[in-house]
Amino acid sequence: VTVAPPDRNGRRLILEVHTRSIPLAPDVNLERLAATTPGMVGADLANLANEAALLAASRSHEAVEAGDFATALEKIILGAERHVMMSVDDRRRTAYHEAGHALVGMLTPGADPVRKVSIIPRGLALGVTFSSADTERFNYTKGDLEGMIKVAIGGRAAEEVIFGDISTGAEGDIERITQLATHMVGRWGMSEKIGMVAVFREDGQGRAPLSAKVGGLVDDEVLRIVDEAHDQVVSLIQTERARLDALAEALLEHETLDEDAAYATAGVERGAEPPLVR
Amino acid sequence: VTVAPPDRNGRRLILEVHTRSIPLAPDVNLERLAATTPGMVGADLANLANEAALLAASRSHEAVEAGDFATALEKIILGAERHVMMSVDDRRRTAYHEAGHALVGMLTPGADPVRKVSIIPRGLALGVTFSSADTERFNYTKGDLEGMIKVAIGGRAAEEVIFGDISTGAEGDIERITQLATHMVGRWGMSEKIGMVAVFREDGQGRAPLSAKVGGLVDDEVLRIVDEAHDQVVSLIQTERARLDALAEALLEHETLDEDAAYATAGVERGAEPPLVR
Amino acid sequence: VTVAPPDRNGRRLILEVHTRSIPLAPDVNLERLAATTPGMVGADLANLANEAALLAASRSHEAVEAGDFATALEKIILGAERHVMMSVDDRRRTAYHEAGHALVGMLTPGADPVRKVSIIPRGLALGVTFSSADTERFNYTKGDLEGMIKVAIGGRAAEEVIFGDISTGAEGDIERITQLATHMVGRWGMSEKIGMVAVFREDGQGRAPLSAKVGGLVDDEVLRIVDEAHDQVVSLIQTERARLDALAEALLEHETLDEDAAYATAGVERGAEPPLVR
Amino acid sequence: VTVAPPDRNGRRLILEVHTRSIPLAPDVNLERLAATTPGMVGADLANLANEAALLAASRSHEAVEAGDFATALEKIILGAERHVMMSVDDRRRTAYHEAGHALVGMLTPGADPVRKVSIIPRGLALGVTFSSADTERFNYTKGDLEGMIKVAIGGRAAEEVIFGDISTGAEGDIERITQLATHMVGRWGMSEKIGMVAVFREDGQGRAPLSAKVGGLVDDEVLRIVDEAHDQVVSLIQTERARLDALAEALLEHETLDEDAAYATAGVERGAEPPLVR
Amino acid sequence: VTVAPPDRNGRRLILEVHTRSIPLAPDVNLERLAATTPGMVGADLANLANEAALLAASRSHEAVEAGDFATALEKIILGAERHVMMSVDDRRRTAYHEAGHALVGMLTPGADPVRKVSIIPRGLALGVTFSSADTERFNYTKGDLEGMIKVAIGGRAAEEVIFGDISTGAEGDIERITQLATHMVGRWGMSEKIGMVAVFREDGQGRAPLSAKVGGLVDDEVLRIVDEAHDQVVSLIQTERARLDALAEALLEHETLDEDAAYATAGVERGAEPPLVR
Amino acid sequence: VTVAPPDRNGRRLILEVHTRSIPLAPDVNLERLAATTPGMVGADLANLANEAALLAASRSHEAVEAGDFATALEKIILGAERHVMMSVDDRRRTAYHEAGHALVGMLTPGADPVRKVSIIPRGLALGVTFSSADTERFNYTKGDLEGMIKVAIGGRAAEEVIFGDISTGAEGDIERITQLATHMVGRWGMSEKIGMVAVFREDGQGRAPLSAKVGGLVDDEVLRIVDEAHDQVVSLIQTERARLDALAEALLEHETLDEDAAYATAGVERGAEPPLVR
Repeated sequence: VTVAPPDRNGRRLILEVHTRSIPLAPDVNLERLAATTPGMVGADLANLANEAALLAASRSHEAVEAGDFATALEKIILGAERHVMMSVDDRRRTAYHEAGHALVGMLTPGADPVRKVSIIPRGLALGVTFSSADTERFNYTKGDLEGMIKVAIGGRAAEEVIFGDISTGAEGDIERITQLATHMVGRWGMSEKIGMVAVFREDGQGRAPLSAKVGGLVDDEVLRIVDEAHDQVVSLIQTERARLDALAEALLEHETLDEDAAYATAGVERGAEPPLVR
Repeated sequence: VTVAPPDRNGRRLILEVHTRSIPLAPDVNLERLAATTPGMVGADLANLANEAALLAASRSHEAVEAGDFATALEKIILGAERHVMMSVDDRRRTAYHEAGHALVGMLTPGADPVRKVSIIPRGLALGVTFSSADTERFNYTKGDLEGMIKVAIGGRAAEEVIFGDISTGAEGDIERITQLATHMVGRWGMSEKIGMVAVFREDGQGRAPLSAKVGGLVDDEVLRIVDEAHDQVVSLIQTERARLDALAEALLEHETLDEDAAYATAGVERGAEPPLVR
Repeated sequence: VTVAPPDRNGRRLILEVHTRSIPLAPDVNLERLAATTPGMVGADLANLANEAALLAASRSHEAVEAGDFATALEKIILGAERHVMMSVDDRRRTAYHEAGHALVGMLTPGADPVRKVSIIPRGLALGVTFSSADTERFNYTKGDLEGMIKVAIGGRAAEEVIFGDISTGAEGDIERITQLATHMVGRWGMSEKIGMVAVFREDGQGRAPLSAKVGGLVDDEVLRIVDEAHDQVVSLIQTERARLDALAEALLEHETLDEDAAYATAGVERGAEPPLVR
Repeated sequence: VTVAPPDRNGRRLILEVHTRSIPLAPDVNLERLAATTPGMVGADLANLANEAALLAASRSHEAVEAGDFATALEKIILGAERHVMMSVDDRRRTAYHEAGHALVGMLTPGADPVRKVSIIPRGLALGVTFSSADTERFNYTKGDLEGMIKVAIGGRAAEEVIFGDISTGAEGDIERITQLATHMVGRWGMSEKIGMVAVFREDGQGRAPLSAKVGGLVDDEVLRIVDEAHDQVVSLIQTERARLDALAEALLEHETLDEDAAYATAGVERGAEPPLVR
Repeated sequence: VTVAPPDRNGRRLILEVHTRSIPLAPDVNLERLAATTPGMVGADLANLANEAALLAASRSHEAVEAGDFATALEKIILGAERHVMMSVDDRRRTAYHEAGHALVGMLTPGADPVRKVSIIPRGLALGVTFSSADTERFNYTKGDLEGMIKVAIGGRAAEEVIFGDISTGAEGDIERITQLATHMVGRWGMSEKIGMVAVFREDGQGRAPLSAKVGGLVDDEVLRIVDEAHDQVVSLIQTERARLDALAEALLEHETLDEDAAYATAGVERGAEPPLVR
Repeated sequence: VTVAPPDRNGRRLILEVHTRSIPLAPDVNLERLAATTPGMVGADLANLANEAALLAASRSHEAVEAGDFATALEKIILGAERHVMMSVDDRRRTAYHEAGHALVGMLTPGADPVRKVSIIPRGLALGVTFSSADTERFNYTKGDLEGMIKVAIGGRAAEEVIFGDISTGAEGDIERITQLATHMVGRWGMSEKIGMVAVFREDGQGRAPLSAKVGGLVDDEVLRIVDEAHDQVVSLIQTERARLDALAEALLEHETLDEDAAYATAGVERGAEPPLVR
C-alpha cells in the first residue's frame, strides 16, 4: 500500500505530538512550521524536532526557539554548511548568482516565496536559494512552470549582466531547466507544435515510434522555451539591477538572508498566502 | 488455459451466488450491477459483495442498498477517497476539468455513458470522471476511438476555455490520447496515409524495418488526429459553455454527481442501451 | 535431428492406425481428412481421432461421423467456441467482415479453398474464415502471395463498403498483411525497387548495413503493395456486393457455413484440385 | 592451436588410409575424390568411406563403386533425399529453377564446375545444384564473385523467363547473393564508390562510425551489383533458352543429372582443370 | 556519507601532523606545499611526506628539503620517470610540443600557473607540462575553459609551426579538448546556439530525445570552438616564436624546467596569486 | 603495476643473458637482433633464443647462426610456414601482391625498412611482407601514417596494374587501412574538416553525441584519404613497373627474399638508421 504523505494539517498534528515534551519558545508557530515542511512524513518531523532540541541544548537555551527549528530544517533539507577558503572573485560571483535566483523568485508572479538566500557553501553547492510554497501544490499551470524556469535562469542571468562572463556554476540549474521544459513539451502537452501527445511514453504494446522528426520538433520547442525565458530574465535583471546589487551586497555582508530580510533588502512585497479549502 | 472473463449474464449469476446470504434492499438490481462490472471475475465480484456488506454494517443498516454497492465498486475501481487541503483555485480548476470530461462524454455519440463525476481526490488523481459501456464492447470503430480521444481531451479543453491557461493535470489524459491515436494509425490501419500496415509489429523473422520515413509519417498522423480532435472539443465546449458551468458549479457544491444527476445538471438526455443478442 | 512432418500420404497412414479401433461412419474419408491436416504430426492426428470419438460418444452415436472429425479438427485448429452476449451491431459487422474474407477467398485465383466461415466467437476472435490448400504447398508465387494479402484485406474492405466505418476487428489481418508484404519485398526479392537482396538478413560476418535509405525504400514498397491490393479488394466487393450480402445474411441466420454451403450461397464454383506427382 | 584442414593431396592420403580394408571397384579414383572434398578433415573422410561401404553392402555389391562414394558424399553434404507428394506445377517450376542455376554455372567463365543437378527434395530444399572447384580456392577475384552471384540468380531468372512469375523458392539464393555483394563492397574493397575501406569492421578502439551516409552508399552499390547481374542472367537465359529447356526436361525425366550428363544435355563443354604448383 | 576533501588550510594542518617527526630543511614551506596539493586527502599527504623522507634518506641528507617534496609530489601525480632510447627527431619534437603547452599556459590570462615542464618520459607520456592553480577552483568561467582548451592545443600547434607536420603525440590533448568543449556546449550552457539546455542528460522519466538535429548543432559548436581556439593558438605561437625556441632549447639542454626556470626562460612574468576569503 | 616493455638496449642485455650458454656463430649480432624485436619482453626473447638453438641442433650445426635466429623470429612473429597446393595463377597473383607491398615500402620515405618478402603461405596468409623500424617508434607523424596506408595499398594496387582484376586477398590490408585512416581523422586530429576533436571518445559524463552529421564528415574524410593514397600508389607502381616485375619474378623463383635481396632485386638503396639519444 502506498501511503500519501500527510498534508499541512496532518504535519501540524504530528509536530504537536513530537514537541509535547520539548519546551517551546513563544516565537515557535507549529502551524507555520507545518507549512514549510511539505513532503515530510512522521519520521522526518520527529527528526526535525529532535535536531532543534539538540541545537537549543548546544547553546544552553532553556526553550527551543523558532530559529532552532529553522536551522534544523535547513540542515535536513539543504545539507550541512561547509566552510572553505574561496577567492574574493568566486565569493562575489556566488553572491550575485544567488541574488539573481532570489530576485527573479520574488518578482515572478506565482513563483513560490523565497525562504532563504545564502552564500555559505553546503555540500557541493557554493550557495543556495530556497523557495517553498505556502501549501502543497497539486497542479502546476503552464505559467507556473515558466516561472520556475525563469527562477532557475536567474543565477546565470545575473552573472551575465554583472560580469559579462558565465560560469560552470549553473550546471544544476541547467539540468532543472531542461527537465522542466522537456516535460512541458513532451509530457504535459504545453507546446502547440506537438499538442496533447506524450512524446516519450512507451505504450503497453511496445515503444511508440518517436520519430526523429518529432524528436527534432520537441528539441526546437525546448530550446525556444528556454531561450525566450532567458531573454526575459536578462531584461528583468537589467531593469531591476538596483535590487540585485542590494541583495548581493547584503549577502556579501551577512552571508545569509531569511525570508523577511530578503524581501526587505530587495524592496519587494511578499504576496498573500492563497485561500485553502478542504 | 486462458479463461475469458464472464460476460454480463455470467456476472449476474455470480453476483446472485455471492449475495445469497446478504439481505438486499429493494433498490438493488443485480442485472444492472452486472452491467457495470465488465472485466471483473468471480473473486472481484465476491469482494464487491463483501465490501458492500461491510459498508452497510458500518452504517448499521439492516439491508445492503444500491448505494453501498456503488460505493464499494468505486473504491475497488477508482481507489479510496482522500481528503486533502487544497487551494480554492486548484479545486475550481479540478471541477471544470472533470466537468469538461463529463460534458464531452455526454455529447459525443457512441461514447460510453458517464456513470459518475467527482472532485474528491482519489489516489494520485484530484478528481475523476467514470464512464462505462452498458455492455461489453468487442469492437471499436474509428468513430468510437475518435470519441474516446475527445472525451480524454475534454478536461484540458475546459481549462483552456475557462482559465486561458493549462495545467499538468492532463498528464494521464495525454498518455491515453497518445496511445489511442498511435494504435489507430500503427496497429488498426485507420490512417489512409499508412493503410492496413502494422507499423510497430515484430514479425517472426526479425524486426521489420520501420523506417524513419514511416515513423515520421505515423507521428504526423498522430499529431494531426489529436490536433483535429482538440479543435473540435474546444469548439464544442465554447458552444456548450452553459452546460459546463452548470456541471462545474454542481461539482463545487456537491463534490460528486452520479449518472442521473450529471445528465440532469447538464441537461443532456442519456442514449438508449443497445439491443443485445447471444 | 529435425524430422520433417509427414506428408499427405503419411498422414493418411497414421490416421488409419489411430482409427483402427474406432467405428467409422461411411461418410468418413481418411484420404480427404489427411488433405486437410497439413503440418500435423502423429500426436496431433492421434488427438484428432480421440476428440472425434469423444464427440461421437457425447452424442451417443454408434459410429464416428465425418462431422465429428470436422468439429474436432476445428476445435484443435481454431479454438473452442465461446458464447457471448453481443450487440446486434457487433454481430452484423462480424458477419460482413467474415463474409468479406470468404468472398475474396472464393474469387481470387490460386487462393486456398474456403473450408468454413463462422460468426461464432472462438478464443479472442469474433468470427473465423478458415481456408486450407488441397495439398501441401512448397512454393508460393508472387501471385499467390498477393492473393493471400487480398483475402486478409477482404474483412476490413467489406466493413468499409457496407458500414462506411472501420473497426479494430482487423488487427490480426493487418499483422498478417504486413508480414506477407514485408517478406515479399525484403526476403523473397519480389520488389523491382530492391531486387534479389535480403534486406533484413544478418550475415555471418556481422550485420549488413540496412541503411535508412533502403529501409525507407522497403516501407514505400510495402505500403504500395498493401494500398494497391486494398483498392482492388474494395472494387471487387463493390462489384460483387450481392454475393457478399447473401453470405452475410446466411451467416446471421446459420452462424456457420461449411465449404459447400459457402460456395453455394455465394454462387461461386470451387476450383479443381491440382494434379499431384511424387 | 588451430589446425588448417588438409589440402587435396592430404585428403588423398587420408582416403587411402581409410579405404585400405575396403574392396574398391576399378572406377574409384581417390585422386578425383580428394578433389571434390575440399574442407573435409580426417573424421569427415572416414565417415565418407564408411557410408560408401554401407551403401555397397546394402546393395550386396562386392566392391564399393564410384557411385557409392558419390551417393555417400551427397548425403553428407546435401542432406538425405526426401520423397514428398508435390503438384505437377511445383515440380516443373523446380526443374526450371535448378536448370537455371546449372546452365548459368556452365556458361559463366571461372565458375566452379557443376557436379550434380537434381529435383529430388533434400531437407528443406525442393532441388539442388551442386558445384565445386577442381581444387581449393585461396583467392576470389571480383570476376569470380560476380560469377557466383550470377549462378545464384540463375534459378529465379529461369522462373521469370519461363513462367513470367516468381516464387519464394529463391529465398536461400537471395541470402547468398546479398552476402556476396555486401562483402564485395564493404569488406573486399571492390566498389569504386567506397574504395579500400572496411565498412563494417569494428576496430580495437571502438566502433568505427559507419555513418548513415556510407551505409546508404554501400546499399546503393549492393543493389546496383545485384541488379546488373540479374539483367545479364535474364539475357543469357533468354539467349540460351534451348539449353535450359533441354536441362529442365532431362531433370523432369531423370530427376538427377550428374556432371557429365548435365554438360552433355546442355551441350556445354567443361573447362579444363587449372594447373597446380606446390 | 561523502566527505569533501580538505581545503588548503586543512591540508596545511594535515601536513604539519605528518611532518612532525621529520627534520625539515629551512626551504620547506608547508603553506606553499598545501597550495600545490588540491584534491589530496590525509592518506595522500601522509604518503607524500613519507616519499620525501625516503628520497632524503636515499641521498643521505639530514633534513628533507623542498626539492625532495617536489620530487615526491611529481612521482605521485605524474608517474615515475622512464629512461628510453629515442631518436633525435622524436626528442626535438617532444621538446617543442611541451614548450608549446607551457608557453600558451604562461601567456593565457586566467590559466593555471605552469609548475614544471619536462621531456623526461613518464608512463606512456613522452613529456609533461604540469600546471596547477594557486588555490582550489570552485567555478570555471567560459573564459577559463577557453584558456584550458588553448593550453591543451599548444603542443600540437607548436609542432605545426615548427615542423609543418603533426603527430600522434596529441592524442591525450585531443581527448581533453573534446571533453571540455563538449561540456561547455552540452552541460554548462555556454553556446548561444543551444542555450541553457542540458543536451546529454537523462531525466527521471526516461531519456530525453536528444534529437539528431540538436546532436548536429552541438557538434557544430564543438568543432567551431576548437577550430577558433586552434587558429588563435597558432597565431600566438607564430608571434611568440622566440620564446618557444628558448623554452624548447632549454628543455633539450636541461630536460626539466621548474616554475621559475620556465617563466624566466620564456621571459614571462607570473601573475599574482588571487586574494582569498573564508 | 603496468611494466613498460624493455627498450632496444634492454632487449640486448636480456638476449645476452639468454644466449650465454649457447654457442653463437660469428655472424650473430645481438645489437642488431635487439633492434628487430621491439615489443618483445623477457619471456619472448628467451623463447627466441631457445627456438634458434633448436633449429641449429636440428641441422646438426655446432653454433647458432644469424639465420637460425631469423627463422626462429619469423616463426614467432609470422606463424609457421604451410605448404599447400596452389594454382599457378594464385601463386603468380600472390607474388605480385607481395612485391607490391614491398616495393611501396622501399620507395616511401619514412616507411619502416622491408625485412622479408615471401610467397610461402603462413597461417591464413598466402604470402607476407614484413617491415620493422630500426628502433622503437614513439610518435607517428601524419606523413608516417600516410606512408603506412600506402604500403598496405601496395599489394592490391599491384594486382590492379598487372592483372586488371582485384581479389579477396586484400581483406586484411583493407582492415588495416581503414583503422589507420579512421584514427587519423577521429582520434589524432589529422583532418582539417574535423580538427582537434576526438570523434569516437566517450567522456566520463556519458557518451558525447557523435552526431550523424559528424559521422558522415568523418567517413567522407576516411574515404578521401584512402582514395588519394590509392591513386598515388597505382601511379607509383605504373612508373616503377620494372622494379615490381623484378621483385615478383625473384619471388616466384626463390619464394623468399630477405632484406638485402629485396632491396638489391628492386634496385633500391636502403635509408640510413636514424640517430638515437637517451
